[in-house]
Amino acid sequence: MKVAIQGKKGSFSHACVLANGVGKLHDEQIEILECHWFDDVFKALDSGEADIAVCPIENSIAGTIIQSYDLITKYPNLTVISESYLRIEHHLIASPETELEDIKEVLSHPMAIRQCAEFLDKQDFVAIETDDTAGSVKKIIEEGSLDQAAIAGKLAQELYGGKILVNNIETDPNNYTRFWWITRHNSPLVKASEVNKVSLLFETNHTPGALAKVLNIFASANINLTKIESRPIVGKVWRYYFYCDFVWDQDPDYLHKVLDIVSENTVMLRVLGEYREGKETKQA
Amino acid sequence: MKVAIQGKKGSFSHACVLANGVGKLHDEQIEILECHWFDDVFKALDSGEADIAVCPIENSIAGTIIQSYDLITKYPNLTVISESYLRIEHHLIASPETELEDIKEVLSHPMAIRQCAEFLDKQDFVAIETDDTAGSVKKIIEEGSLDQAAIAGKLAQELYGGKILVNNIETDPNNYTRFWWITRHNSPLVKASEVNKVSLLFETNHTPGALAKVLNIFASANINLTKIESRPIVGKVWRYYFYCDFVWDQDPDYLHKVLDIVSENTVMLRVLGEYREGKETKQA
Repeated sequence: MKVAIQGKKGSFSHACVLANGVGKLHDEQIEILECHWFDDVFKALDSGEADIAVCPIENSIAGTIIQSYDLITKYPNLTVISESYLRIEHHLIASPETELEDIKEVLSHPMAIRQCAEFLDKQDFVAIETDDTAGSVKKIIEEGSLDQAAIAGKLAQELYGGKILVNNIETDPNNYTRFWWITRHNSPLVKASEVNKVSLLFETNHTPGALAKVLNIFASANINLTKIESRPIVGKVWRYYFYCDFVWDQDPDYLHKVLDIVSENTVMLRVLGEYREGKETKQA
Repeated sequence: MKVAIQGKKGSFSHACVLANGVGKLHDEQIEILECHWFDDVFKALDSGEADIAVCPIENSIAGTIIQSYDLITKYPNLTVISESYLRIEHHLIASPETELEDIKEVLSHPMAIRQCAEFLDKQDFVAIETDDTAGSVKKIIEEGSLDQAAIAGKLAQELYGGKILVNNIETDPNNYTRFWWITRHNSPLVKASEVNKVSLLFETNHTPGALAKVLNIFASANINLTKIESRPIVGKVWRYYFYCDFVWDQDPDYLHKVLDIVSENTVMLRVLGEYREGKETKQA
């Protein structure tokens, strides 16, 4: 099975794959397809080059990764079949011979550097921004650098070597990333299961209160909103899409009856995926 | 007057300041305070080091810049007094002696590189990711590099020199960034004016349909939603804030009567700012 991720092996997307029991490190059954851009992840999946993609869609600190939402919208053949929440833990990783007092520079993605600001403020390091957490570990280890460290997850250290000098240097421990597992509608990975969550994209009628009307339909049916985000429709002044997630307790078919009613009250409605609500996981 | 921006002079935030008639390039009346992180922008403003901040809050392609929303939430003394939309135009900028065929590397912020993907796909350049568009131009010009170019806005070229080799290399011309103008509540820059837009943060009661109820109040009062985004409240399972913008036609005081009713139906309500709806601008 080929799993497409944005970024390098050892990244948090890769950690999410492993944390959910899909393959093990150095498992030949699972091949990780490294993609530089999110666009490449979706292209690889749509073309059949990859079987599934694991794609971050929101982070508790950084917010929605709107690119992922916009990209799935572009590909009608793709569907979300699962979601996972991964606890993001940042560690200071260096070559085996390096000690904390040797370090002059710290390399990582700007987001990771920012999320470790409290720790870094107490040190005398120069922060160097790179495009990848795991790739920074790889670079330091391959070059045998003795005065540099990287900020990345544990998996990067397990994969590329080196040692963790300081554990959990993230300022806010409430740092979770939510991932979607996406595949093609015709994939054997799509199977009917006990779904209780749905991700929708819809465009309301162009009248005041149109969104309130749609939300009233769900509320009356005891289907609860867990996320909502508006997106302006390019070229249409005053028109916008909504990305919404809902959860409910009833059987899966119940949803479809409600969606029929919603469909009558919207200009466009697309089900991006139906799946089981995810639990929080962390790297073992 | 000191204006705090995230990033370097010549950036799109700086262009937004100028496009709205606040000072001119090399104007000594206006001092631009360059801040590395968004956090620094808000700190400078809150402490009185800066008089006003110009801060991006959403982009038509990249989505909401949730950091800006979260940061204003942290500072109760700050208020939004205006908004602007700036057309984002990317140009290929190089040293005066460099021709297109000399270029081997292109430097810019990853977002700018991605937004010019169609142009770059046709060239034989290596893309180098940096943390700043304007800073990339500055670097190339200062180093006198003859085989590099940068992707940035026109202002960076006007400020740091060099020449525009290719104009408007962005793939999607519908690329706008929305900026907030933020100051302190006690600043003389806050003045009562013809406001018709409000940005709110609120937490609904913890009952199904609570958001629909709030939106119904606004809809019944002919106050129209233009943006909505949910934010999970860290540590409170199943509770979330909403960031919303509304516009209306009535007089400014009308809003306050409606907000009194909304306040009765929410757990928490904060007005982030009341201001006049912004128009689209572009750099002259």
